[in-house]
Amino acid sequence: MNQKKITLAMGNGGKENGQLISELFTKYFQNQYFGIGEDATTLPKSPHQIAMTTDSFTVTPRFFPGGNIGKLAICGTTNDLAMVGAKPQFLTISFIIEEGFDFDELEKIVKSIQNELQINRAYIIAGDTKVMPKGSIDGLIINTTGIGEILKPNISAKNLEVGDKILISRDIGKHGATIFALREELNFETNLKSDSASLFPIVDKLITSNIEIKAMRDATRGGLAAVLNEWAEINNLAIEVLEERIPISDEVLGFCEFLGLDPLNLANEGTFVLAVKNGFENQALTILNKFNSSANIIGEVVETPKNRVLLKSNYGTKRFLEMPTGEILPRIC
Amino acid sequence: MNQKKITLAMGNGGKENGQLISELFTKYFQNQYFGIGEDATTLPKSPHQIAMTTDSFTVTPRFFPGGNIGKLAICGTTNDLAMVGAKPQFLTISFIIEEGFDFDELEKIVKSIQNELQINRAYIIAGDTKVMPKGSIDGLIINTTGIGEILKPNISAKNLEVGDKILISRDIGKHGATIFALREELNFETNLKSDSASLFPIVDKLITSNIEIKAMRDATRGGLAAVLNEWAEINNLAIEVLEERIPISDEVLGFCEFLGLDPLNLANEGTFVLAVKNGFENQALTILNKFNSSANIIGEVVETPKNRVLLKSNYGTKRFLEMPTGEILPRIC
Repeated sequence: MNQKKITLAMGNGGKENGQLISELFTKYFQNQYFGIGEDATTLPKSPHQIAMTTDSFTVTPRFFPGGNIGKLAICGTTNDLAMVGAKPQFLTISFIIEEGFDFDELEKIVKSIQNELQINRAYIIAGDTKVMPKGSIDGLIINTTGIGEILKPNISAKNLEVGDKILISRDIGKHGATIFALREELNFETNLKSDSASLFPIVDKLITSNIEIKAMRDATRGGLAAVLNEWAEINNLAIEVLEERIPISDEVLGFCEFLGLDPLNLANEGTFVLAVKNGFENQALTILNKFNSSANIIGEVVETPKNRVLLKSNYGTKRFLEMPTGEILPRIC
Repeated sequence: MNQKKITLAMGNGGKENGQLISELFTKYFQNQYFGIGEDATTLPKSPHQIAMTTDSFTVTPRFFPGGNIGKLAICGTTNDLAMVGAKPQFLTISFIIEEGFDFDELEKIVKSIQNELQINRAYIIAGDTKVMPKGSIDGLIINTTGIGEILKPNISAKNLEVGDKILISRDIGKHGATIFALREELNFETNLKSDSASLFPIVDKLITSNIEIKAMRDATRGGLAAVLNEWAEINNLAIEVLEERIPISDEVLGFCEFLGLDPLNLANEGTFVLAVKNGFENQALTILNKFNSSANIIGEVVETPKNRVLLKSNYGTKRFLEMPTGEILPRIC
C-alpha cells in the first residue's frame, strides 16, 4: 500500500499547505473560534484575568504506554494553566514536521489532541505548520501555547508560609521511568505506563471546594525534587518532607533501584505538588484521593534551613534533597 | 578560546536550565509582567477584545542581510497581530536548541529579539527551552505566540466587496530572494537584503488616520500571489491587479529572471497587502509612502471571474495569477 507522506510543499503557504490544514487540522480542531483565513484569531472578551503559557514537545518515542506526543502537548500546556488556577480555554498549536513523516501517524496524534482538548473543554484557535527537509529534524516537534481565565486568583509559587502543608496528587516518576525504559532498550519487562493526564478537572474540584490553595506545580522535568527546591528558594524558607509518605509504585521503585535512578528526579506529566494553608490538608487529600488513591500529604513548610529541602525518614534521619543537575534524560517531553 | 556551548543539561528543568534562563532570557527579556517561577503568567485585565496567533521559525541560514531568526520570530508574530488591527502586547517564546549550539550566537539572536520587541512595545511574558541531542535538530527553532488588544475591530479577510482598492506596502520578494541567493550558493553578486520588519508602526498610523481598512495580510510564504488568491476565494469574488503597478526592485527582478522564479510567489517578511474601501486608497498610499516610497495601489476587487486573480498588463493583456503550488523553498522563515 502506498502510504501518504508529508511533503515539503505541505509546509510553505501555498495550495498543498491549505490542503493539509483542511484535511487534518480544521477537520479535527474545528470550532466556533478558529480563525480560518486570518493572520490572527479574534477571541471573545473576558471579564477575568487571563494566564498564558507555552511549551514545546520533543518526546521520543512519540508513542508510549499512557500517551503520545499529541496528548502530552495538550496536557503540558493546559496543566500549566491549571497550576495557576486558570481554566484552560484557547490554545495555539504549531507543528514542525520532518519531510516524509507518515500522514496516518500524524492523524493519530491529531486525534489524541482532539480528545485531550475535549477533557479540558479547550479550543485550538490558531495554528502553524512547518515542514523541514529530511534529516534536519527528527520526526516531529509540537509547540502549544495557551491562555485561560483565572478562576481563583493569587495562586503562586511565592505564597508559601511556615505551616503550609505539601501534598502530592499521586505516585511519582511514572512518565520518566516509562520513557527511560523504552529508550534504553533494557529488555526489562515492565508494566510501566506514563501518568500523562490533564489536571484541570482535579484543580477545578479543589477550587470549587474552597480549599485555601497556596501554590500548585506539576512535577515535570526535574520531578518532585525540582519543584520543592524551587519553592524553598523562591520563598527563602525550607520544606520538610517525610520520605515514606512520598507515593512511589513498586514498578517505578524497582526500575529506579535497578538503574540507580532517583524517582524524585523523574519527570511526571499528570502529577502535581499542592501547597495548602495549614488546616486544609485533609479536605484537599480527600479530593485528590477521589482521582487517585495514592495521593498523600508529604510534608510542610518550615523556617529553616533557608532555601533547602529536607527529607526525613521514619527512623528520624534527615538528608538534603538537592536540585537535580546534569543530563537527566533529554526529550522526555 | 573555549567557546561556551549549549548542553543537554541546560534544557531539562534542573539547575543548569535555571542558569541558562537567568543568564540569557530573563537578562534580556525582563519586564514587569514576566512570570518567573510560575507555570503560567498572569496578565493584566483588558477592556479590549484580544487577538492571538502563533508561528514557528526554522529559517536557514539563521543570519542573513536584513535580519536573523530572532528578529524574524518577533516580526512574524507581531505582524500577524497587526494584520487584524491588534497592538502586539504579550508574547511567549520557545527555543528548541541543538546540543552544542554556540552560546554567543544564541545571545546575538536574543539581543535582536529584545530590539524588535522594543519597536513593538511588546513583552515576552513566558518561555520554554528544550535542548535536543546533536543531530536530532538542525541548530535552532523558535516558536513565538502572541496576543494583542484589537484597536480597530472587524478587519478581516472576509470583508472584501466589489470596488475595494488593493495596495501593497512596498516592493515585493526581498526576503525570499535574499534567502534563496544565500542557499543556492550562486556566487551571484547581489545587494539583496530581506525586508524583515515590524509592521505595527505603519498599521497604527493607518488606524489613527481613520482609513477604512477592510483587510490586511503580510505576504509571507506563498508571497503576494497566495494572499490575493486566498482573498478572492474566501470572498467568492475576483481581484484584478495591474501588473506594472506591482513594485519590484531591480535586484529582485534580475535575480528572478536569472533563476526563472516568479517574484509574486516569493516570501516577504515586512510587506503587507492592504484592502481599503473605495475612496480611501490615496490617503492610505500617502501613509504607506511615508514608510516606503515604493508602496503602490495595485488593483481592485471586481465581481468576476469568481475566486480568481487577474493580472492585467499595460498592453491590455490579461492572465490568471495562480495560487503557488509545489516546493517553493523550505525553511524560508
